[in-house]
Amino acid sequence: MSSKIRVGIVGYGNLGRGVHKAIGQNEDMELVAIFTRRDAARMSADTNVNARFESISNIERFRGEIDVMILCGGSATDLPEQTPLVAASFNTVDSFDTHAKIPEFYRAVDEAARKGGNVSVISTGWDPGLFSMNRLLAESILPQGKEYTFWGKGVSQGHSDAIRRVPGVKAGVQYTIPVERAIASVRSGENPELTTREKHERLCYVVAEQGADTAAIEREIKEMPNYFSDYETTVEFITEEKLQAEHSGMPHGGFVLRSGVTGEGTQQLIEFGLKLGSNPEFTASVLVAYARAAARLSQEGASGAKTVFDIPLGHLSPHSAEALRERLL
Amino acid sequence: MSSKIRVGIVGYGNLGRGVHKAIGQNEDMELVAIFTRRDAARMSADTNVNARFESISNIERFRGEIDVMILCGGSATDLPEQTPLVAASFNTVDSFDTHAKIPEFYRAVDEAARKGGNVSVISTGWDPGLFSMNRLLAESILPQGKEYTFWGKGVSQGHSDAIRRVPGVKAGVQYTIPVERAIASVRSGENPELTTREKHERLCYVVAEQGADTAAIEREIKEMPNYFSDYETTVEFITEEKLQAEHSGMPHGGFVLRSGVTGEGTQQLIEFGLKLGSNPEFTASVLVAYARAAARLSQEGASGAKTVFDIPLGHLSPHSAEALRERLL
Repeated sequence: MSSKIRVGIVGYGNLGRGVHKAIGQNEDMELVAIFTRRDAARMSADTNVNARFESISNIERFRGEIDVMILCGGSATDLPEQTPLVAASFNTVDSFDTHAKIPEFYRAVDEAARKGGNVSVISTGWDPGLFSMNRLLAESILPQGKEYTFWGKGVSQGHSDAIRRVPGVKAGVQYTIPVERAIASVRSGENPELTTREKHERLCYVVAEQGADTAAIEREIKEMPNYFSDYETTVEFITEEKLQAEHSGMPHGGFVLRSGVTGEGTQQLIEFGLKLGSNPEFTASVLVAYARAAARLSQEGASGAKTVFDIPLGHLSPHSAEALRERLL
Repeated sequence: MSSKIRVGIVGYGNLGRGVHKAIGQNEDMELVAIFTRRDAARMSADTNVNARFESISNIERFRGEIDVMILCGGSATDLPEQTPLVAASFNTVDSFDTHAKIPEFYRAVDEAARKGGNVSVISTGWDPGLFSMNRLLAESILPQGKEYTFWGKGVSQGHSDAIRRVPGVKAGVQYTIPVERAIASVRSGENPELTTREKHERLCYVVAEQGADTAAIEREIKEMPNYFSDYETTVEFITEEKLQAEHSGMPHGGFVLRSGVTGEGTQQLIEFGLKLGSNPEFTASVLVAYARAAARLSQEGASGAKTVFDIPLGHLSPHSAEALRERLL
């Protein structure tokens, strides 16, 4: 490893752009290249982005020149294929978030990374990631207790896509909103049993096609199984201009709470929360901190797949253990 | 190590009693003995406590019979002496919290633990401990940002002691209270510069001696340098009965917030908070989770002093890495 950690980015969508910006905030890191399936020459020519683009097919040529690859593809199709492939040749970090498939993904990546002698940090970001860490931490400290995760207020891509598939809908955005009353009940130590409807509500801003039947659109959204029918759903029709002006950001966030008891029924509450102006930029910042950890673990001789549960927090920081003890403990 | 983690407790004040109760909540642990400087035979005879008491002078006889010693003494005089001594023969965990002396304490414990081939987790609990972890995590993810720690609402022993030293005061309790307005300002992303007075206020419940000059007491408290003069302080005189009935618990808590920016000025907020019905019982629960980590690290062949920054979170849990990935990631 050179004096700076040499980083590659694979994929240049919202997350990849966030990683690019985040690397700029960390003085111990330098971006070597961005790997893309698109036309690398044309992307390099774009003067708005000051970076070297390379075709993903050239990635193997960078062996020995890049300490860690940050994989910014999607969980549905990109990462299940990409992570094992890249982990055979490089240390990697990704944000694989298809929960049910994590064990299977872990095994595939672990095998590839071990063979290659590389470290592969999988499924980091904020959920999975920081939220997972807080679930683990809180349950280990308060074994007698109950855990609650709330998401939002934030844009859900899946639900926004579902709205846009409704006939007569030109554009739309869906916000997941945690129910304040439910959070207050958890914080008060009431240990409520909460139904799906009691935990989150859904707010949809919809731009209708000209002449569309808005009553029918509203009904179809509210009755959509899995996505909306189990929730208190509000549908608000707005203009395309307003949607652009007020709802093109990607805010998100949420809370992990654990309410437990110690001794003879003493109430204890642990709470972790995020309020994110941009979901992809924040996820990117988490990926970059774990890229540092991956490079360091590899330097220490580790290999295989790792999760946020396996990595000491000190490895996320550019500062020495001694400095951290003195300043932050 | 036997199938259960065999634990010893050193010191049986509020914290030691909390650890005793917390061990009872963790099925993978068993209490072997409580070591005390007091009369062990008399303490064993106390039928209210179902445990074996031993004189601290017999501790060496338990080599090989105890996997980890949880040290429950105070930071002022007990731990600086006890931890290096016990760490020479056993894995240990403690809650040393004299911040300025942590580097020196670390070196002494590290040397003793290495010589003995043991693991010694120092300075855990919630601050130092969970709050430290969140400071480190948040600053590693959001390097461009500002960190705020608020304590309370909770009883400060040091400040309560200071009240009780004022002439004419029979008894008293001091609550440290975070200023809501300040927290709201941080949460809103305003990145305020906060003075001492703007962050916390102090609320004192005082029982005056019969015939004491309460105006003089109030003035003396409010003008006390270091403890109260830099704060908005409220002094309320109450009866001894009311003090007993309403203020004999040891609640505490607080918040660690980091407000930062990513990309082109996007606001991001990370918040961790605790609301504790009992400070010593919660600290005890953290110590017990880290006792598990100490035993496991030792089993893996590690030795020396460790802090919360050095220990993977998975080591705090009784569950396997595979089960944690499947259920909590």
